[in-house]
Amino acid sequence: MEKRSVNVGIIGFGTVGSGTAKILLRKQNELRHKLGFPVVLRNIADVDVKKDRGIKLSKDVLINDAHRILNNPEIDIVVELIGGIHPAKEFILQAIKNGKHVVTANKALLATDGQEIFKAARKHCVDIGFEASVAGSIPIIKIIRESLVGNKIQSIYGIINGTSNYILTKMTEEGVDFTSALKEAQALGYAEADPTFDIEGIDSAHKLTILASLSFGIPFSFKKIYTEGITKITPLDIQFASEFGYKIKLLAIAKQAGNDVEIRVHPTMLSKGHLIAKVDGVFNAIYIEGDAAGSQLYYGRGAGEMPTGSAVVSDIMDIAGNIIKTQGTVASGDPPRREHRTQTKNWIQDTGCRIKKMEDIQTCYYLRFSALDKPGVLSKISGILGSYNISIKSMIQKGRKIQKAVPVVMMTHEAKEKDFVLALKEIDRLSIVSGKTVYLRVEGGELI
Amino acid sequence: MEKRSVNVGIIGFGTVGSGTAKILLRKQNELRHKLGFPVVLRNIADVDVKKDRGIKLSKDVLINDAHRILNNPEIDIVVELIGGIHPAKEFILQAIKNGKHVVTANKALLATDGQEIFKAARKHCVDIGFEASVAGSIPIIKIIRESLVGNKIQSIYGIINGTSNYILTKMTEEGVDFTSALKEAQALGYAEADPTFDIEGIDSAHKLTILASLSFGIPFSFKKIYTEGITKITPLDIQFASEFGYKIKLLAIAKQAGNDVEIRVHPTMLSKGHLIAKVDGVFNAIYIEGDAAGSQLYYGRGAGEMPTGSAVVSDIMDIAGNIIKTQGTVASGDPPRREHRTQTKNWIQDTGCRIKKMEDIQTCYYLRFSALDKPGVLSKISGILGSYNISIKSMIQKGRKIQKAVPVVMMTHEAKEKDFVLALKEIDRLSIVSGKTVYLRVEGGELI
Repeated sequence: MEKRSVNVGIIGFGTVGSGTAKILLRKQNELRHKLGFPVVLRNIADVDVKKDRGIKLSKDVLINDAHRILNNPEIDIVVELIGGIHPAKEFILQAIKNGKHVVTANKALLATDGQEIFKAARKHCVDIGFEASVAGSIPIIKIIRESLVGNKIQSIYGIINGTSNYILTKMTEEGVDFTSALKEAQALGYAEADPTFDIEGIDSAHKLTILASLSFGIPFSFKKIYTEGITKITPLDIQFASEFGYKIKLLAIAKQAGNDVEIRVHPTMLSKGHLIAKVDGVFNAIYIEGDAAGSQLYYGRGAGEMPTGSAVVSDIMDIAGNIIKTQGTVASGDPPRREHRTQTKNWIQDTGCRIKKMEDIQTCYYLRFSALDKPGVLSKISGILGSYNISIKSMIQKGRKIQKAVPVVMMTHEAKEKDFVLALKEIDRLSIVSGKTVYLRVEGGELI
Repeated sequence: MEKRSVNVGIIGFGTVGSGTAKILLRKQNELRHKLGFPVVLRNIADVDVKKDRGIKLSKDVLINDAHRILNNPEIDIVVELIGGIHPAKEFILQAIKNGKHVVTANKALLATDGQEIFKAARKHCVDIGFEASVAGSIPIIKIIRESLVGNKIQSIYGIINGTSNYILTKMTEEGVDFTSALKEAQALGYAEADPTFDIEGIDSAHKLTILASLSFGIPFSFKKIYTEGITKITPLDIQFASEFGYKIKLLAIAKQAGNDVEIRVHPTMLSKGHLIAKVDGVFNAIYIEGDAAGSQLYYGRGAGEMPTGSAVVSDIMDIAGNIIKTQGTVASGDPPRREHRTQTKNWIQDTGCRIKKMEDIQTCYYLRFSALDKPGVLSKISGILGSYNISIKSMIQKGRKIQKAVPVVMMTHEAKEKDFVLALKEIDRLSIVSGKTVYLRVEGGELI
């Protein structure tokens, strides 16, 4: 019995699930025309089958048991949009085992268990689409895998968490503190009730893990990535940064450094002139440099119902096209199936690249001390920095309050993180310095 | 006799041909690993087989007869990189007829004869890759066709000619005139000896034709596109634009306007705050808006040996993957061949969209007159504008030279092009106005 359609089942009818369903239903004629075959949304499974998602589904499409999708032999592509590790992982592995292709937006799962999932996909000859897992509407996965296929990737700098970028933009433009900016982001729906993943840089690190695996052939290794969030950023530091000509952004950085790769997420000072420093609000942007293509910047919405749904649909269409190309006609009931040539087969090449230890990276730093304004203070601090081979590029001392603590701000030349950490410890022990020294890393030499 | 490789022949060993060959040869191991099969550069044909292109080829690879590639049954993909209409068109049609897939960077040919070429490709079930034809390293073709497959495209604004962008940047940053900036661009190799296509907007219009066909389903119709170059731009207008908060860029614009689409290339005033206004030098950028994905901006190198070569290689790899997926194993000697499911099959949907007449577009305008500085002049000019329903938003009059001509600059609210052209004629007939009035269109409401 031959059927001539590609059948899709969505697990998770939340924001992205709704966006995906809306596009599949509203654009069904256009999609059918482009593919040559209809893409049929057979089922959506969610624990809540009552809530109104602003979309009219045919009878029997919405179900409350994901296993009816996973075990339905007529479904070709399972779209996992529930997020989190469990039961998303079990659902995906079951789908793969049942010979179904998978589309997912689950960055947390791929960043931690990607190795296992892709191994299973290779074994069962199915595709995994995950465009929606990084930077929403920006097709960075496809760009790295396909458009830059002839390139050795040299660096990636990404603003890939819209929540933190919104908070930092708010703090920069209005001078409000972190807590107020976070509250506003929550009120607007840009931050969740528990914002930990966003503001602590964890979400960015999940996404960076995926980008780094694709670009540098490093096995998914979320736990090894240095991750620092934006909770300690103050309006004062944003203002000082501005006086030096910089903006503060939460950057996800992966770059070739000799045989190793630096991979890290942290608030970063960027020259205002860089294009990526101009990416404000909830928008995402990814700067990427390839040895042939040169410098590129991709900018767009990193989240939201329709932008992320758009990315999910592009994966569904790619896999649907792949099914049709491989099988000639779609006849998933008829064994023996021809071997499906997966897109994921060879995309992670273990190049032997390793992650550089954080203590070995070299960068420039911004430091802010509260120091007593008395003679000899600066010579003491610069003496300590000098003893660790850290030289000062510029300095601002604000106000003069003899015998009282005033903020002193310094920008260093390039130094080793290890030396910097040791120097900082020594400075913080000085009696003339009150409180902990604030510091930020500075990037930008190669950026456009 | 089964062979397990994809064989490529390049016609044209100029800048892009050399870049493509370098990537195919230097990255052959990586490409082979990603594809699962080797991509073999079998031949390069050029009339000049003596010139040193900085690349070492095996014996017998470089030949001087393109027909040896077109007629070689072992070659799967023909890469046309000679440019121009003839004999490129004949080569491509011959390749298609011989069942070969084609990759080309030839925007002029596609913009004028795309309809015929794609019809032939559909008939012979072969793929046409043309990523390199628009915006060099920026994968805008793939993004529109694949990543935004679930979107209705609403607007495109592109800086897609690096030469003009370099010239305008130079004029803006250094205040030099058009002729000097062009000379410098020529000296640096950014402009050709005959720069007509670049500076008259023709190259941008070729590329816009391709983008508009893909995005709006309009048959290739280069001749119907309003095209205006940058030769009349003066440092004075750049300076006035700056005083109003604008920059002047040569923009390629395609946007939905009701049931029609506006498609036009002309120098455009853009608010300095827009991201695309910050794209300087030889870089290209494309702003695109989809109904699901929202606003996106893609930025990168629009020309050059390696950036364009990178785009050509991505097309070769896509088609190679397609050949392998479709055929199971590559055995191009063995008939009967399975039907190759082309990527180009359904990508131009004639949506019934038509190009809006230029006289019917509505936009804001910048005008510069040389008017005698005497009472009543402004009321006369604004009276004429008013009689055509054009209202003035702001005005600058520079200097005061009683009874002599001084520049008067105006920005209008939105007006109809037809009305504007008529008003302009009437104003230019006034005895108090000397010389022809200079005008520029202003864009930006929806831009990011």
